[in-house]
Amino acid sequence: MLKRCIQPLVANHCYTRLKCRHLRHSNMAEPRALLILAEGAEEMEAVITADVLRRGGVNVTIAGLAGADPVTCSRNVVIKPDTSLDDATKTGKYDVVVLPGGLGGAQRLSASSRVGALLKVQEAGGGLIAAICAGPTALAAHGVAAGRTLTSHPSVREQLAAAGYAYSEDRVVRDGQLLTSRGPGTTFEFALALVEALQGAERRDSLVPPMLLKL
Amino acid sequence: MLKRCIQPLVANHCYTRLKCRHLRHSNMAEPRALLILAEGAEEMEAVITADVLRRGGVNVTIAGLAGADPVTCSRNVVIKPDTSLDDATKTGKYDVVVLPGGLGGAQRLSASSRVGALLKVQEAGGGLIAAICAGPTALAAHGVAAGRTLTSHPSVREQLAAAGYAYSEDRVVRDGQLLTSRGPGTTFEFALALVEALQGAERRDSLVPPMLLKL
Repeated sequence: MLKRCIQPLVANHCYTRLKCRHLRHSNMAEPRALLILAEGAEEMEAVITADVLRRGGVNVTIAGLAGADPVTCSRNVVIKPDTSLDDATKTGKYDVVVLPGGLGGAQRLSASSRVGALLKVQEAGGGLIAAICAGPTALAAHGVAAGRTLTSHPSVREQLAAAGYAYSEDRVVRDGQLLTSRGPGTTFEFALALVEALQGAERRDSLVPPMLLKL
Repeated sequence: MLKRCIQPLVANHCYTRLKCRHLRHSNMAEPRALLILAEGAEEMEAVITADVLRRGGVNVTIAGLAGADPVTCSRNVVIKPDTSLDDATKTGKYDVVVLPGGLGGAQRLSASSRVGALLKVQEAGGGLIAAICAGPTALAAHGVAAGRTLTSHPSVREQLAAAGYAYSEDRVVRDGQLLTSRGPGTTFEFALALVEALQGAERRDSLVPPMLLKL
C-alpha cells in the first residue's frame, strides 16, 4: 500500500508523475511538457503554447523532430528547438506531449514512427496528450486515443471522423488524457487549459490579465 | 503635377510607397513590413504579427537588431531572424516598421541609435510605425510620434504619459502613422489592424475564420 504523502498541498500537477495518493500536491518540481516541432508547424500554435506554459511555471522542451537544427515553420518563421526529439526523450517522462498544427508539420508528425511510439508510451503511462489544429491527425495516423472525443481545425474534421473519433466543435476539448483544440485563434485557450490541467485553475487565472487576454 | 495612375484599384496598400494619386491601388507588389527582433522580445507578439501579416500577403522581414544570429526571446523561444537589421535597411523603404514588446527587447530597441534613426526616417517618409506592449517605450526613447495618442502594456503607461503621449486603453489605437496595442492577448487584433491598413478590410476579414479567431 502506498504511504500517504506529507508534502503541502499546492497544486494538482503531480497526478501524472508521482506514485502519491494526493491529487493536489506539489513536489516542488515543475511539470514537464514536450512540444514536438516539425518543419511546417504552425509557428503561432507552437510559440503561444510554449510561452503560456512557461508563464504558468511548466518546464517546456521544444524538441525538433528532425534534430536540433532550426525549423522552418508554416509561415517561414524559423525556430531553433531547445534540443532534438532523440535527446529530449532520454530525460524521463513528460506530463504532457504537445503536437502543434500546421498541415506540413502534422504530416511529418503523422509519418514519424518515433512520434507514434512516443505517443503510445505516453498514453499507456497515463500522461496527457495535447494536439491542436491539424495536430490531431497524427493521433489518427498512430492509432492513439482511439474512440475519444476531440476537436481539430475544421479542414481535417472528416479525416478524424473517418478514423473513428467523436467530434466536437468546442474550442478546447478535454476527454480523459486527451486535450485538443482548433487553430491559431484558439491557442491561448488551449495553452491555458493545459496550465489548468498541470498547475491548477488559480495559476491559469493569474496569467490572463498580464497578457491582456480577452476570453 | 503627378500623372493619374491607371493601375486597377484593388487595395489601399500603396499610399505610403508610391507617388501616385490613388489611395486605393495595387502595383502588384506586396507591401513590406520590417519587424525588429531584439533579445528579450515577447515571442508571441513577434510571431503572431509576422505570421498574420504573411497570411495577409504582406512581405515581412524579421530583422535581428544585433545581427542575423538566433535571438533568445522573453520566454526562451529562440527565433532565427531572416536577416540582420543592417542588411534589412539596405533594401529600400518599408510600409511599416513593427516593434514587438517584451521588456528586455523594448529596452534594447530604446537603447539603439540605429533604431532611433530608422524610426525618424520612417516617420518623415510618411510610413506606418507599429508598436505593441512595451514596444511603444522605444518611441518615447527616440522622440518619435511626439504628442500622438497611443496605448501600451499597462505596466509602461506612466512612462509614456510622462513622455507626453496621450494615452488610450483601447486594445488597438491608430493615430495617423502610428498604430499601437497592449500585449500578447491583443496581438491578433494588432496584426489584423495592420493587414487592414496595408491590404484593406476585405483581406483582413478573410483571415479571421481560417484561424478560428474569436474577436
